[in-house]
Amino acid sequence: MNNAMYIKTIDIRTSNRDELVDITPQVAQAIHESGIDEGVVTVYVPHTTAAVTINENADPSVAHDILAGLDKAFPWHQSYYRHTEGNSAAHIKSAIVGSSARIPVQNGKMMLGTWQGIFFCEFDGPRRRHTIIAVQ
Amino acid sequence: MNNAMYIKTIDIRTSNRDELVDITPQVAQAIHESGIDEGVVTVYVPHTTAAVTINENADPSVAHDILAGLDKAFPWHQSYYRHTEGNSAAHIKSAIVGSSARIPVQNGKMMLGTWQGIFFCEFDGPRRRHTIIAVQ
Amino acid sequence: MNNAMYIKTIDIRTSNRDELVDITPQVAQAIHESGIDEGVVTVYVPHTTAAVTINENADPSVAHDILAGLDKAFPWHQSYYRHTEGNSAAHIKSAIVGSSARIPVQNGKMMLGTWQGIFFCEFDGPRRRHTIIAVQ
Repeated sequence: MNNAMYIKTIDIRTSNRDELVDITPQVAQAIHESGIDEGVVTVYVPHTTAAVTINENADPSVAHDILAGLDKAFPWHQSYYRHTEGNSAAHIKSAIVGSSARIPVQNGKMMLGTWQGIFFCEFDGPRRRHTIIAVQ
Repeated sequence: MNNAMYIKTIDIRTSNRDELVDITPQVAQAIHESGIDEGVVTVYVPHTTAAVTINENADPSVAHDILAGLDKAFPWHQSYYRHTEGNSAAHIKSAIVGSSARIPVQNGKMMLGTWQGIFFCEFDGPRRRHTIIAVQ
Repeated sequence: MNNAMYIKTIDIRTSNRDELVDITPQVAQAIHESGIDEGVVTVYVPHTTAAVTINENADPSVAHDILAGLDKAFPWHQSYYRHTEGNSAAHIKSAIVGSSARIPVQNGKMMLGTWQGIFFCEFDGPRRRHTIIAVQ
């Protein structure tokens, strides 16, 4: 196993227009496969209407409220949107939530807080999506 | 000193529900301790109702206005929130401001801009908090 | 060529108060110059009223809609702003879009999605700006 960098792409299928998908187990699995004990893992979303965030994975109502709050601040329909695909709100949410997350790794485990999980954020689903996991 | 990675956890105590705490000196200190001259420092917040950002540390009114603007866009009380702890707005702010910041390091110093400082963002305080600093 | 880290600063001149500038070619060029085949590139903006994001570079109306949506959620004029420079909205946008972006690099190329480009985000222009590109 090369100790410098390990890259893996995972597939995700979403079911709703807005959805948070917990991918913590897949990221943990990639770190295990990498054989890297100490470093940083980068989770990268190669889509312009999706994102990745780290948030609470204990109570599913948190995911609901995050999506609802974003939808309220950045409504799907606005008279000033020009993009003809009609998904401008998804692009805005992608820009502010962000396309990558990074978590330090120690003793082969992510240093996530007690309540933290890693979520793929769908803002224009349902779709087939990908996420890249890079362990350094 | 190991040149690959240096990890340190710092403690933070916040005093208000919403608060920006300048942690630039602690991050600079961790880089000094690491003995790493060139690389990237990752500042990681292991909480789901807090975040980290880089912004102006010269005029304290900037911190006030950032917190006020976020509170206006994502109000504390909303009829559609389902999370029974009542702190959904804090989770949303955490998701959009983000749980990590990264700054390039050269000649043992962060390449921060003239007006930039690193701020721990409290969105559901007051609490005792932690921040992880990883120098690569 | 040192294989550990390559750092380059590029200059950007913006023309409007709010503007997205596609810097994908400059980042690709820095990776080429670094001679690094596999790693992660960090794009870092050392300004407190600017940011960097990854989003669609095919249809320019997407950039327009992102800027318009942010301006709607975080208006330029608000009675509760205290910062006397009058650019608090730019600081808020900078905090939520973020000062850095990271993209995995494989075989000397960024693993960007089909529609993804890297954009310098001006929120208080026009100005002369800088962006730091660090390849690890």
